[in-house]
Amino acid sequence: MTPLQKYRLKYKPTLPKALENLNGVTFKGGGKTLALGNEKEIEKHFPKTFGRPLLHSVEGGSTPAKGLKVGVVFSGGQASGGHNVITGLFDALKIFHAESQLIGFLGGPSGIIEGNALELSEDLLANYRNQGGFDLIGSGRTKIETDEQLDQSIDTFKKFLLDGMVIIGGDDSNTNAAILAEYALKKGCKTKIIGVPKTIDGDLKNDKVDISFGFHTATATYGEMIGNIARDALSAKKYTHFIKLMGRSASHIALECALLTQPNCTLIGEEVAAKKMTLKEVTNTIADLIEKRGNRGKNYGVVLIPEGIIEFVPEMRALISELNTLLSEGKDEKSLSVDGKKTFHFLPKEIAQQLLLDRDPHGNVQVSHIQTEILFSTLVKEELKNRPTFKGKFSPLHHFFGYEGRAALPTNFDATYCYALGHVAALLIREGHTGYMSAISHLSKPPSEWDISAIPITSLMNLETRKGKEKPVIRKALVDLSSPSFKFFERSRIKWMEEDHYQFPGPIQFEGDPSITDGPPKTLLV
Amino acid sequence: MTPLQKYRLKYKPTLPKALENLNGVTFKGGGKTLALGNEKEIEKHFPKTFGRPLLHSVEGGSTPAKGLKVGVVFSGGQASGGHNVITGLFDALKIFHAESQLIGFLGGPSGIIEGNALELSEDLLANYRNQGGFDLIGSGRTKIETDEQLDQSIDTFKKFLLDGMVIIGGDDSNTNAAILAEYALKKGCKTKIIGVPKTIDGDLKNDKVDISFGFHTATATYGEMIGNIARDALSAKKYTHFIKLMGRSASHIALECALLTQPNCTLIGEEVAAKKMTLKEVTNTIADLIEKRGNRGKNYGVVLIPEGIIEFVPEMRALISELNTLLSEGKDEKSLSVDGKKTFHFLPKEIAQQLLLDRDPHGNVQVSHIQTEILFSTLVKEELKNRPTFKGKFSPLHHFFGYEGRAALPTNFDATYCYALGHVAALLIREGHTGYMSAISHLSKPPSEWDISAIPITSLMNLETRKGKEKPVIRKALVDLSSPSFKFFERSRIKWMEEDHYQFPGPIQFEGDPSITDGPPKTLLV
Repeated sequence: MTPLQKYRLKYKPTLPKALENLNGVTFKGGGKTLALGNEKEIEKHFPKTFGRPLLHSVEGGSTPAKGLKVGVVFSGGQASGGHNVITGLFDALKIFHAESQLIGFLGGPSGIIEGNALELSEDLLANYRNQGGFDLIGSGRTKIETDEQLDQSIDTFKKFLLDGMVIIGGDDSNTNAAILAEYALKKGCKTKIIGVPKTIDGDLKNDKVDISFGFHTATATYGEMIGNIARDALSAKKYTHFIKLMGRSASHIALECALLTQPNCTLIGEEVAAKKMTLKEVTNTIADLIEKRGNRGKNYGVVLIPEGIIEFVPEMRALISELNTLLSEGKDEKSLSVDGKKTFHFLPKEIAQQLLLDRDPHGNVQVSHIQTEILFSTLVKEELKNRPTFKGKFSPLHHFFGYEGRAALPTNFDATYCYALGHVAALLIREGHTGYMSAISHLSKPPSEWDISAIPITSLMNLETRKGKEKPVIRKALVDLSSPSFKFFERSRIKWMEEDHYQFPGPIQFEGDPSITDGPPKTLLV
Repeated sequence: MTPLQKYRLKYKPTLPKALENLNGVTFKGGGKTLALGNEKEIEKHFPKTFGRPLLHSVEGGSTPAKGLKVGVVFSGGQASGGHNVITGLFDALKIFHAESQLIGFLGGPSGIIEGNALELSEDLLANYRNQGGFDLIGSGRTKIETDEQLDQSIDTFKKFLLDGMVIIGGDDSNTNAAILAEYALKKGCKTKIIGVPKTIDGDLKNDKVDISFGFHTATATYGEMIGNIARDALSAKKYTHFIKLMGRSASHIALECALLTQPNCTLIGEEVAAKKMTLKEVTNTIADLIEKRGNRGKNYGVVLIPEGIIEFVPEMRALISELNTLLSEGKDEKSLSVDGKKTFHFLPKEIAQQLLLDRDPHGNVQVSHIQTEILFSTLVKEELKNRPTFKGKFSPLHHFFGYEGRAALPTNFDATYCYALGHVAALLIREGHTGYMSAISHLSKPPSEWDISAIPITSLMNLETRKGKEKPVIRKALVDLSSPSFKFFERSRIKWMEEDHYQFPGPIQFEGDPSITDGPPKTLLV
């Protein structure tokens, strides 16, 4: 372990007031909840768990007579703070009763199916407190979907005599938690299933979950890098940096990084979609500002590109969908429609080739593999060549930040938030709730004032088409173009474009003034 | 300014004891110095400055009767701490005499030639203390080489009535400083020229300069990212990350990052050259460890590739040299020698294409543009395909870290080191020395114990061929394969290969326990 890791082991997260006396807190419910859409159908899928009330913490509760036995699993990609959900869960269970046990399922949901598990002891956890990564128990992307997998999972719960099972994951994994909760009740299994909102993408949030965990650490890490690159650009004055940022479809990460670093241009997928912008229009937006800057002697800049941007450009969405159909029929780009052909031939050659060649096991175009940073820099280069009015120089450089921020040492915010989320999950199990997501809100306040609640997962669902079938799933939270943070970005970016208003956040700090070490994502503060 | 930037403005670097009473310190010389090679020829180039003694600090010195007027310029790529050389210089000059003046030349050496300058005031500097980047006065890559440029520079020194000129740069810029010092003396110009050792590459070092400034911050930043990626790899267990690291030719950055993060494989150019390894042998080294790991179920890993590796592979060096000649004669790869053809056709198609198409303004192959991370991952993939003994999976991902670490907020080490380097430069000018490089050694001790000296730049020179001509230049310091740090790496890497010994250094910290916030590069500690 490095000195910093050892030092972080000693960090003590501040608990919200409501969680200070764990054996004196319980939950009180409000009215029946609905779903975000297709309520009737969602209710049909979840006859036993649909409509349960939103819960908030109140005084009450008591020490259980015997120890609880609870399972925990990571599902999907890393997000910083995951280990603290587990330590939070462990510490709470031990406060409930010294004989409580925590079982970690290994390598993601497949660990549940296979019953591959490890009892987590204080000694083992001692080296994972406030640390990054998911390596204590690993993670995986297996989904518990088929009846066989569901039955195997219930068998595991029974075999391990679990009072509860905590699933730490993103929208799909929390949908899975709801399905498991429903199935367990149907099968008379008493294990309570609780989800914890995890994803660096920031697209799992709602009225009671201000943000998913991991988002803060990831964006702070990317913000450090983008700021450093911006300062380099400002000093060297010769490169335009195209920086692609991880984050599947929604552009939350790009927006947060824009607020942190104030680059010259940030594409927001949701805005591109709302304005029905063509590739040409997006290209022109970037080319315009590079021209203006270049003509004033500023031959440098920073452009942020969200990984998922492509799917928000209507013509690209249409092209990809057309290609998926054609390729599955053994045809090629020659069979594209007139519009499809137009878009296809507008693409730089290498990107067009990539669309044809790089396909997933189902034969679909691999959207996440498209090098959007190169796509846009190439289109901009072509566009600027055709502009006699452009007097500057354009030298693009490319970056992609993603894996750098998923397994980093969690910020004080994520460490504290996750530790509290683990406590809430433990409480929900003790109090006998199932099919709920641990929820903490008011995250822009100091941790002691955070608000504790729990949301029936079904209330976050709607029906969406997956592999050709309508399925109940948690609706992804996209960037809200009417939110204060987007509005602030929209107002500010005009001056960020032509002038230099770069901000240099620097590396995440753990010690010192709270204005530097603490606090939530900027999107929550604006 | 971000909260962290504001906070860093208040940081007070600790001065070495020898610099505490600036008006009571001077320099004492030892014997005549020579050069690193070709002494006779170097002496001919530098008749006035050759052979001056190495200087070390002693008690003595006194307050000058009037203020000094000194110029300062950044030359070449960014390195963290540059602004602190300037504030260190400024503060020392003001301690000498309240009426001293510091003039910043803008946009690099071209600012000297054109006399484009700005007086640096306390108010202006107040916002740059302990900050990253070179944006206070900018930088540039112009070299002051021709007699005309040299004359223009001397004119500027005279016009500005400069007592001294401080050139903050790498090996070439310090060579330039020596040329200017010699030329000034020849022309009867009294301006003293002092160099300051800057470069993230770490290849400007010698007996009295343990390391150039900027190396520590850059490698700490890359170390943070590599550690984060390693922790991600360890959690996700499905990708092998090929990480290319900036640093022109020498592999110092790769070695330091290896010591910081203990990845599975780190290529060291100097070792590849010493062992005369072929591309195939380098490929096999990587493929062997991936096979061993994969066959034990470890389908993940981290491989560090220094940017300059290509030039250390003898057959690639030969190929590039052959191609440069052929291309300049209007021929193509078909005219390559038998060996050249063999190497060329061993390369992945895209890389071979890149060699032919991507040429600099002189028509030469752009070695720094070669995507070595993709080169090796592609060769390894091919190799593994041909190994029936390989039972694992190989999914490579690629990263390049460079611009992220050049303009970052300097570490406490770089901030302190640079502040002291500025003081030494000021002292050298006050004491009337020219053609010297500010030098601080014993950097592995606490700053108060650092040793202050100055090196005649000519003593670091030898003759090398540049653009077909023999020129006196500072010899680049390559990785010394007999050094304790390389030996330690060599001993340790065997266990780093097959097992997982990743270290996660985390983000640079400024506040807290000195074991976390302070200390020099790891290469100096081993």
